[in-house]
Amino acid sequence: MPNLPQKSDLQQTFARLKGRVHRTPIFRSSQLDGISGADLAFKAENLQRMGAFKMRGALNAILSLTEEERNKGVVTHSSGNFAQAVALASRLTGIQAYIVMPENAPVVKQNAVAGYGGKIFPGGNSLADREKRAEELMEETGANFLHPSNQIEVILGNSTAAIEFIDENPGIDYLVVPVGGGGLIAGTALAAHYFGKDIQVLGAEPSGADDAYRSLREGFIVPSENPDTICDGLRTELGDVNFPIIRTLVTDILRVDDIVTLQAQKLIMERMKLVVEPSAAITLGAVLSYPELFARKRVGLILSGGNVDLSPLFPAGS
Amino acid sequence: MPNLPQKSDLQQTFARLKGRVHRTPIFRSSQLDGISGADLAFKAENLQRMGAFKMRGALNAILSLTEEERNKGVVTHSSGNFAQAVALASRLTGIQAYIVMPENAPVVKQNAVAGYGGKIFPGGNSLADREKRAEELMEETGANFLHPSNQIEVILGNSTAAIEFIDENPGIDYLVVPVGGGGLIAGTALAAHYFGKDIQVLGAEPSGADDAYRSLREGFIVPSENPDTICDGLRTELGDVNFPIIRTLVTDILRVDDIVTLQAQKLIMERMKLVVEPSAAITLGAVLSYPELFARKRVGLILSGGNVDLSPLFPAGS
Repeated sequence: MPNLPQKSDLQQTFARLKGRVHRTPIFRSSQLDGISGADLAFKAENLQRMGAFKMRGALNAILSLTEEERNKGVVTHSSGNFAQAVALASRLTGIQAYIVMPENAPVVKQNAVAGYGGKIFPGGNSLADREKRAEELMEETGANFLHPSNQIEVILGNSTAAIEFIDENPGIDYLVVPVGGGGLIAGTALAAHYFGKDIQVLGAEPSGADDAYRSLREGFIVPSENPDTICDGLRTELGDVNFPIIRTLVTDILRVDDIVTLQAQKLIMERMKLVVEPSAAITLGAVLSYPELFARKRVGLILSGGNVDLSPLFPAGS
Repeated sequence: MPNLPQKSDLQQTFARLKGRVHRTPIFRSSQLDGISGADLAFKAENLQRMGAFKMRGALNAILSLTEEERNKGVVTHSSGNFAQAVALASRLTGIQAYIVMPENAPVVKQNAVAGYGGKIFPGGNSLADREKRAEELMEETGANFLHPSNQIEVILGNSTAAIEFIDENPGIDYLVVPVGGGGLIAGTALAAHYFGKDIQVLGAEPSGADDAYRSLREGFIVPSENPDTICDGLRTELGDVNFPIIRTLVTDILRVDDIVTLQAQKLIMERMKLVVEPSAAITLGAVLSYPELFARKRVGLILSGGNVDLSPLFPAGS
């Protein structure tokens, strides 16, 4: 049994974030219940500030710093939602954010980070380059490093989505959560452990990036090598902070083929009218992929984010 | 002053529909406030049952029939959201729906109506053909005709969206509503008249289908001829039941170019993560088109529906 965070840690985090992040709504769809054969409730973290649950962890990590630490700012390297979350959370708390992004990061993502006031530093095109650039920035500025998924304050912040969910739906059987770097599922598992009553937490992971599935079976962290999936938020690997929590508290990881994730994304957008990214829709993909497991069960699904490129819907330039 | 429905009519309608339609959530976006320079609140009728406010009017019209009338079923002709609304409302109330659709109606819309249990009758490709087919069905079956916008029970049903909105946001300055056949804006204007405090109701109409704009100026119903707009729900014209209400209670109609409506649709989908159809996004298009009118005002926008073709986002066959 690892040294888990305590229930009081989660309660303090929940109190700290209350009123600073959105308490996102929970949606149901009788059509999707009919299609899946289960009783589904969707936690719409795509409607969270900046469009993803990452806001919870980023803000909690910043609020957990001392005032002296905060004054020196924060550094992260990310090309995805966490970069935007750190930029926005920094603006809201009045501190400086240094964001190292790949030089080939899409302009739309760079614009989003800059729009939230983040200072972007080009960090080459390899993870090693970006880690080096982030370390240089820490040395130059004294800023604190924030990790997207392998830091306890980030995990605790992420747990608040599931705490809200369980508060409104105490009787569910399963919570289904996307697995990438492991920060969301670790937080969710802690919330289920301390606030749920026999809730099983299941991860949904792309078949083409199933390092967490294999890590759970091997008993050690299997690196993510050549991940092949449309779920761009789920290509990363577990870390030494979240893996012990996941190993102890998560029931299983379900592998989902991208083709099913795409069907799930289309269903959520067409039937529920919510814009979700593939990395969020994979939760419904897991339910559709394992119908016997979920038949007639009460299932909570965390729709982690909605940052997706919609330009194919619109004429160029509009 | 025309013979307006009474406040008690709206209250009875609200009580009748309560629990049978969704009380849809209201969303705000600090990003869109920043872009528009106004204080915006969006009533998400795209999250209504079957994806549009039309459910309110269709269900109220059916519930207003006597039991004897209901047993004979209902007829409508529509290729859009109203056909789906009548089909679903009929299934929920256990009656038969006869839906006359254009023979060239998209398969996806025919499937949606059939999926809700509506019985589809091919009705040629002209409005005259469909009206004739509907009349034949009424004679054959004794079923009652439901009009998508020019029937008082439909208008009263539609009014409940604005009643909910005003209940939660009593202090707004403007309510902005799409104008097609006039059924939504007439209901909204009645709600603002009876439940609001100095709320001005503004219509948003495509520049290429501005018959309501011209009708309000001429003082009589100008027919919609050769409408040219991407807003497929807004190509219809006003009717003798809703026009007197609109003329009496609506402040003005604002014309919006399709290019701005598309920008608005993209903003709502990208920033708010809500799937909306152009006919709904035109409300934000109106705010963006008349910045001086809306500067620093508290504005309610009714996002009327979210039934839009998303297939460009997905690979064929997924």
